[in-house]
Amino acid sequence: MNTSTPRLMIDAVRVEKNLNRLAAYGKSHNLDIRPHTKTHKSLKLARMQLQAGAIGLTVAKVGEANIMAEICDDVLVAYPTVDAWRCKQIAQLAQKQKITVALDSDIAVESLSHAAKKYGCTIGVLVDMDVGFHRTGVQTALAAFELAQKIDQAPGLRPDGLFCFPGQVWELPENQGPVLAEISSKLAEALDLFSRHGLPAPMVSGGSTPSAFQSHLVPEFTEIRPGTYIFNDMNTVRGGFCELDDCAATILTTVVSDAVPGQVVVDAGSKTLTSDRCGPEPQSGYGYILEYPEAKITALSEEHGQVEVRTCDHVPTVGERVTIIPNHICPCVNLQDYAWWVEPDRPPEPLPIDARGKVA
Amino acid sequence: MNTSTPRLMIDAVRVEKNLNRLAAYGKSHNLDIRPHTKTHKSLKLARMQLQAGAIGLTVAKVGEANIMAEICDDVLVAYPTVDAWRCKQIAQLAQKQKITVALDSDIAVESLSHAAKKYGCTIGVLVDMDVGFHRTGVQTALAAFELAQKIDQAPGLRPDGLFCFPGQVWELPENQGPVLAEISSKLAEALDLFSRHGLPAPMVSGGSTPSAFQSHLVPEFTEIRPGTYIFNDMNTVRGGFCELDDCAATILTTVVSDAVPGQVVVDAGSKTLTSDRCGPEPQSGYGYILEYPEAKITALSEEHGQVEVRTCDHVPTVGERVTIIPNHICPCVNLQDYAWWVEPDRPPEPLPIDARGKVA
Repeated sequence: MNTSTPRLMIDAVRVEKNLNRLAAYGKSHNLDIRPHTKTHKSLKLARMQLQAGAIGLTVAKVGEANIMAEICDDVLVAYPTVDAWRCKQIAQLAQKQKITVALDSDIAVESLSHAAKKYGCTIGVLVDMDVGFHRTGVQTALAAFELAQKIDQAPGLRPDGLFCFPGQVWELPENQGPVLAEISSKLAEALDLFSRHGLPAPMVSGGSTPSAFQSHLVPEFTEIRPGTYIFNDMNTVRGGFCELDDCAATILTTVVSDAVPGQVVVDAGSKTLTSDRCGPEPQSGYGYILEYPEAKITALSEEHGQVEVRTCDHVPTVGERVTIIPNHICPCVNLQDYAWWVEPDRPPEPLPIDARGKVA
Repeated sequence: MNTSTPRLMIDAVRVEKNLNRLAAYGKSHNLDIRPHTKTHKSLKLARMQLQAGAIGLTVAKVGEANIMAEICDDVLVAYPTVDAWRCKQIAQLAQKQKITVALDSDIAVESLSHAAKKYGCTIGVLVDMDVGFHRTGVQTALAAFELAQKIDQAPGLRPDGLFCFPGQVWELPENQGPVLAEISSKLAEALDLFSRHGLPAPMVSGGSTPSAFQSHLVPEFTEIRPGTYIFNDMNTVRGGFCELDDCAATILTTVVSDAVPGQVVVDAGSKTLTSDRCGPEPQSGYGYILEYPEAKITALSEEHGQVEVRTCDHVPTVGERVTIIPNHICPCVNLQDYAWWVEPDRPPEPLPIDARGKVA
């Protein structure tokens, strides 16, 4: 058996628990779940999400859509497609199945309509509305309505409703009420315009992992798209959205040096853990070492993780293996060709990261 | 032709210029060049480095060594190998060719010797000495000497000399004199101990891209191992080690949104550019946009790059393509399955990133 490190380990029991928890929440609030597969990029895990009741899948890029379409006939591309290459890919998928795209510009509408006409298909379109994260999305209810009208008039496109990403919501769950009420009010204003002009909006897609279990406070949502919830990471732990025991994905590493006093070096650097800092606690280092909670990963080179161990009661020795929960699991998974799937009482099995590197 | 973005573009003319410049420097100072291939992870580019006169190649991990050994019979693994899996891989390579490993612990010596005995091979070993970066490496000349003695006595191992990584040297080239003199003095002290006890040290391996062209100020060096010099990036530009025109690797991106006032979004996020900040100018954003020098990439999501364009005379439009020089090119290359190799008057060709993801 290949015993090499660094190695991405996925705990099957914790994955199932995380999936079931969200599925139960969705069911109890009559809210559809459309998990964002950018976190795991795995067909096996996407299948598990569908089996747990997800109504479809979310992807960021069309490269991911091409992979996930192998197992799902209802894929949402949560990304504006404006260039000819992406629009062509989407149209070709739409010839075979339901595809929905979130976009925020006239140019995107025109490009996508052009491709839909050329390939003789119908593509569902959501208007991406900025509800406070200020990354993409039209700025006002009126702009959302006007873009929806354009979609409605564009050949080959079907206006399906609204889309938003509440990425700014990192308050503790119990404190999210005011910001979610504001989001609800913005969406309601747009939906009111849609409704008064007879524009359909069967889908209102929102949600992120931090806000996932408060999504009922935005009654306009028909579905949510959390991604990280399947694994969790130090962002969601330190943000107060889960416990350490809810983290299903870890990096197994080997200590390769202790030559510098007060420090050990593990064989996971930025090419394994990424340079992402922890959002809620940027000074907490580049991940959390389960066996040495007092240790701090203070610096990363590409293949070295420097771990400050001065405050540890005992310190890891060269050759020892230690387990790291990364700050942000999604880009870490994207660095691996495969992970190891760990079920109780069975040897770990390779789990392909099918959509790894599909950034186009 | 696949016109998708984001796309890693490699400029063949600039690569050749960068390779030739370092080769000429090495020749004029009688200094061997052993390029670090972690930057490009490409067999084609490694071949070009060997053709330009490199005496061998450097790799970080044994997964990379297995790839580079296909075309090079003198590979240095610039990384301590302490676990059984890595030592076995090294020993199996050493059965066929020259392999040298840099290490800094008794445990690493014992593990590697165990594998060398088992596979009936001889492995060259360099003592990794800390010369100020404080990542790995023994701390004193005496410790270096004692570890070299252990290597000398360990079956299957051949003491080849000293290794260091002067990663702390980011002063402007003209100001590097004092810090390089200090490094020279540390190495000389260890080499004097080696020499007085009849321990051979035919190799003294050092060097990084920022210090590459000042390496003659450390006369102990027999070879240097720069990696980034083949491409350069915003770290080396803003550090004062090259000009923008020396950057051979760029990311071609598409503007996908301009819905948020004062900002556009490109389709390269942290899964393309990484979250690495610019070492010399951490507040300069996540890369440099060639066509819009006044623009600033202020934030990255996984697939979105948010570009502040308020200070631009004119702003990029949705669908437009813009070219980004990343802060740190090495981990960006590691995210791509292939790059595009651009020669004058020829269509771009795919360039496989052969050792991508080989972090074991």
